[in-house]
Amino acid sequence: MHQANGVSLEDAQRVIGAGIEKSQEIGQPVNIAVVDAGGNLVAHARMDGAWIGSVDIAINKAFTSRAFDLSTKDLGANAQPGEQFFGIQMSNHGRVMTFAGGVPLQGVDRVVGAVGVSGGSGDQDQSVAEVAAQAF
Amino acid sequence: MHQANGVSLEDAQRVIGAGIEKSQEIGQPVNIAVVDAGGNLVAHARMDGAWIGSVDIAINKAFTSRAFDLSTKDLGANAQPGEQFFGIQMSNHGRVMTFAGGVPLQGVDRVVGAVGVSGGSGDQDQSVAEVAAQAF
Amino acid sequence: MHQANGVSLEDAQRVIGAGIEKSQEIGQPVNIAVVDAGGNLVAHARMDGAWIGSVDIAINKAFTSRAFDLSTKDLGANAQPGEQFFGIQMSNHGRVMTFAGGVPLQGVDRVVGAVGVSGGSGDQDQSVAEVAAQAF
Amino acid sequence: MHQANGVSLEDAQRVIGAGIEKSQEIGQPVNIAVVDAGGNLVAHARMDGAWIGSVDIAINKAFTSRAFDLSTKDLGANAQPGEQFFGIQMSNHGRVMTFAGGVPLQGVDRVVGAVGVSGGSGDQDQSVAEVAAQAF
Repeated sequence: MHQANGVSLEDAQRVIGAGIEKSQEIGQPVNIAVVDAGGNLVAHARMDGAWIGSVDIAINKAFTSRAFDLSTKDLGANAQPGEQFFGIQMSNHGRVMTFAGGVPLQGVDRVVGAVGVSGGSGDQDQSVAEVAAQAF
Repeated sequence: MHQANGVSLEDAQRVIGAGIEKSQEIGQPVNIAVVDAGGNLVAHARMDGAWIGSVDIAINKAFTSRAFDLSTKDLGANAQPGEQFFGIQMSNHGRVMTFAGGVPLQGVDRVVGAVGVSGGSGDQDQSVAEVAAQAF
Repeated sequence: MHQANGVSLEDAQRVIGAGIEKSQEIGQPVNIAVVDAGGNLVAHARMDGAWIGSVDIAINKAFTSRAFDLSTKDLGANAQPGEQFFGIQMSNHGRVMTFAGGVPLQGVDRVVGAVGVSGGSGDQDQSVAEVAAQAF
Repeated sequence: MHQANGVSLEDAQRVIGAGIEKSQEIGQPVNIAVVDAGGNLVAHARMDGAWIGSVDIAINKAFTSRAFDLSTKDLGANAQPGEQFFGIQMSNHGRVMTFAGGVPLQGVDRVVGAVGVSGGSGDQDQSVAEVAAQAF
C-alpha cells in the first residue's frame, strides 16, 4: 500500500512498472515520470527506443498534473485559444504541458502526486498514464 | 558511406554540402545544421546572407526532428491549436520547432540523427532539408 | 550484460539498484540518475527522504560526466579559480556540475553514458556513484 | 582572401579546416566554431569523438572573444576572484566563457569575428584556436 498522503520511491516504481506493462501491451515505448505532492520528481524511466524529446515532456506532464490537480488532457481543453486558461503555457518557466498524458495520483483525501507519460499519440500516452495511476 | 548507426563529421559535412547546393539552385541562402543520435550538434553552416535568427532555428529543427523521430513539418501539423500535441512547443526549454525544415537521418534500423534548415519559406526549407537528408 | 555501446533501461535500473544498496549501507538517502551516450536521461530515482534540490543535481552530474567523459570530481578540480576550466560552470545552460558524484559508464571502447548521485556529502555521493557504475 | 570586414562561410570553413588539421596533429579531437562581427555563428564542426559538452563551449568561446575583442584566455585572467572583471561570467545569459580557446579574427582595421575551440586542455584548445585564426 502507498503512504496515506505521500509518494514513496516504491510507490513510484510500482506506478512506472504498471505503465511499462501497459506500454508493452500496446507496443509503444514511452517515458514515464512520477512526482510527489511538491511536484518534485520521484522517479523516471525511458523505455528502450522511446523519444529523447519526451524525457522533459513526461516529467513536466507529471508536474503540471500535480500543479493544478487535474489531468493535462483536461487542462489542455481549457488552454486552447479563446478558452479560460489560454496562455497558462507561458507560466512556470515552460513546465506546463497542455496535452494528454499527465494524471494525478489520488491520496486519501487529496492529490498527493502525479504520473506523466510521453512517447506515443495523445490517446496512447493517456491510456498508459491512467493504468499507471491505478497502480498507486 | 555513413556509419551503420551514427553520424560522423564527414557525414554531416556531406549532408550540409548537398543542402547548400540545393539552396543555391533555388536562390535562397539558409542555415543548415546536423545533429547526431543524442540530438547534439555535429556541424552547422550559415550561408552568406542567410538570417542570423535562423542559426538557432536550424539547430533546433534538427534537434526536434531527432527528439521525436519525425519531420518538424509533421510535428507541426499535430501541434496546432486543438491537435493532440498542442503545447509541445513549450517543452525542452524552447528547443522544439514546429514548422517545416527538420528531417530525420535514417540509419540501418533506426533514426540516428537529423538535419535542420532555416532561412527561407517553409517549402524552401523543407525541400533543402529533404535533399540534404538524401545525401546521408 | 549491458549493450556493447549503449545504455538500456535495464542497464540503468541495475546501476541505480546498486547505488541504492550502497546508499542504504552508508545510511544516506540520495538521488541517482543515469544518462546515455547522448547525455539524455534514461532513468532516475529519488530515495525516500533525499533532498528535492538534488533531483536536478543528480541528473546534471550524470549529464556533465558524459558531456566531458570524466568524473565531475576531476572536472571540479580543474574548474576552481585559477585553473584551466574556471568558468565552465556557466556553459551548457547551467547543466555543468563541478563537484563529486558523477561517474562515466564505460562501454567496449568508449564512454557510453554516466551515472550521477546527489544527496550526501561529496565523498558519500562519489562512493555511491562508483559502486553504481561498477554494476554497469 | 577573406572579405575586408566580414566573415564569409568560405572564410569560416577555411578557419575550421586549419583548426582540424592542427587538432589531428596533436591528437585531440575538438569542437570548432566561428562567429561573425555580430557574434552570430557562421559555422561549427564537432570532430569524431570530441566532447558533446564542448559544442556549447566552443560556440560561446567564439561569441565571448568577439563580444569583448580579446582572447578568452586574457579575459579569464581578468575574471578571477579579486580581478577587475570577476562576475562577467554572469552576464550575457551564460554565454561568457572565461578560459582559453577563443581568439578574435582580425579584419583590416578591426575585429570582425572570432574562433572558439573546445575539447582538450586549455593549452591544446588555445593552440588550435591560434592556428585556426591565422588561416583567416
